[in-house]
Amino acid sequence: MRVIDTVAEMQQQANQWRREGLVIGFVPTMGYLHQGHLELMRCAKSKSDRVVVSIFVNPTQFAPGEDFERYPRDLERDMELLRSVGVDAVFAPAVADMYPEGYQTYVEVEEVTRPLCGAKRPGHFRGVTTVVAKLFHIVKPHLAVFGEKDYQQLLTIRRMVRDLAMDVDIIGHPIVREPDGLAMSSRNVYLSEGERHEALLLSQALAEASRLVDAGERTAAALVSAAQRVLERGSRVRIDYAELRDAETLQEMDTLDRPGVLALAAYVGKARLIDNAVLRP
Amino acid sequence: MRVIDTVAEMQQQANQWRREGLVIGFVPTMGYLHQGHLELMRCAKSKSDRVVVSIFVNPTQFAPGEDFERYPRDLERDMELLRSVGVDAVFAPAVADMYPEGYQTYVEVEEVTRPLCGAKRPGHFRGVTTVVAKLFHIVKPHLAVFGEKDYQQLLTIRRMVRDLAMDVDIIGHPIVREPDGLAMSSRNVYLSEGERHEALLLSQALAEASRLVDAGERTAAALVSAAQRVLERGSRVRIDYAELRDAETLQEMDTLDRPGVLALAAYVGKARLIDNAVLRP
Repeated sequence: MRVIDTVAEMQQQANQWRREGLVIGFVPTMGYLHQGHLELMRCAKSKSDRVVVSIFVNPTQFAPGEDFERYPRDLERDMELLRSVGVDAVFAPAVADMYPEGYQTYVEVEEVTRPLCGAKRPGHFRGVTTVVAKLFHIVKPHLAVFGEKDYQQLLTIRRMVRDLAMDVDIIGHPIVREPDGLAMSSRNVYLSEGERHEALLLSQALAEASRLVDAGERTAAALVSAAQRVLERGSRVRIDYAELRDAETLQEMDTLDRPGVLALAAYVGKARLIDNAVLRP
Repeated sequence: MRVIDTVAEMQQQANQWRREGLVIGFVPTMGYLHQGHLELMRCAKSKSDRVVVSIFVNPTQFAPGEDFERYPRDLERDMELLRSVGVDAVFAPAVADMYPEGYQTYVEVEEVTRPLCGAKRPGHFRGVTTVVAKLFHIVKPHLAVFGEKDYQQLLTIRRMVRDLAMDVDIIGHPIVREPDGLAMSSRNVYLSEGERHEALLLSQALAEASRLVDAGERTAAALVSAAQRVLERGSRVRIDYAELRDAETLQEMDTLDRPGVLALAAYVGKARLIDNAVLRP
């Protein structure tokens, strides 16, 4: 496994692989890898000849006051996991290499980034699209795999790629969960034992709404309320948002007459967790 | 010469050339080609194996009330000129293919786009960087040639390419002028005979400032005033801006103690013309 930390070296490696006609698969991460990340890598591996994983805690996608400084990091452990999956190259640049002095260029997707996390985390998606665009220019992948847990992020990346005609195939991977249902996240490490238990309420809230849909409920307000009631059972849970929106455009919907995404964000203790489920009429 | 009007076809052609190890040179234009454009193409040709020229009057780089609708177009004549230079492919997409319904992604360079044309033409550079980024993803060039007449545009593109790690070599080409000194521009066609004569004052103003530098003048205000006085000789000339700024950062400068760009924009009749010269102490 090659460990690369400069832009020029990564581009050189990508150019060489492309000249050899090899298909490059890419999984961008912020490190502190869990099984969810590894599934994305296995997915990339099954579709490409070479897999590149980036590890970069991207400062521009943290809103003011968020957990950039204390975001969990463990590069040594990450490297072990990457080797175990058979990743071909790790791109792990320094912040100063990605954002050198005088940096002033940003990529912005406008509409699909407005609600949900976009409304709650100012600048977050601008940071995400900027760094992903830059990583695409560096790693030059044919395909890239993103988790569906960050549903709005996945839609945003898809939109950016289509709008800017980036020649990269974007693959969404289903949410990977712990055996008890908790969506895997690097931020789960923030949870105390008691919080870890209450964090289950997110997936349970989604299951409850899903059950109601199966039983014939189609009113968005009723589905959202049901999910909220489940979340409110947790004494340490503070809802950030709970909304049902069009699964393609993220526009508001009153009735589940087409696929909708039930998107949840909640603080459990200090950890801000998100989860979602696509509900179909 | 191949004429291509879809994104997919252009990407396919670019991918094929790249697989064959050919170097792709690119000159983006808005058409209505003049000798200045042709020089950019000859420059690209001398440095690459295949030359692609795009012809696309990009609506997003025209500010509200500007001349998008009446911008001169003559595709047939353009094709003749492109053939005469030996261009390999022309990419001429429709507006609806570049900006389909639901389009919502923009690339923005912040600081270097603020003064000069950026201050006078709201949204102009956002339109330029967005379309150039998209064209780079479509044409996949190894190098691209831009004219130095659009000096701020060239700096902005350079900044975007560096910031987003686009693997494209940006080449600036010296301003190509008519024998009497007028910088070539598609918009020169707007000039009446009398206006055409007064349009010469732009290059004469630059020459006057240059002469003063040679004579030892280093005060920015004095150099700018001298240029303004020349422009004010024209009864049909209305100055939009005349400024001396740092040639690299476009920040204000009081003293020419490092390279500065003397940038002029003026309406001559209805035509808004720009010209510039880099002055060195």
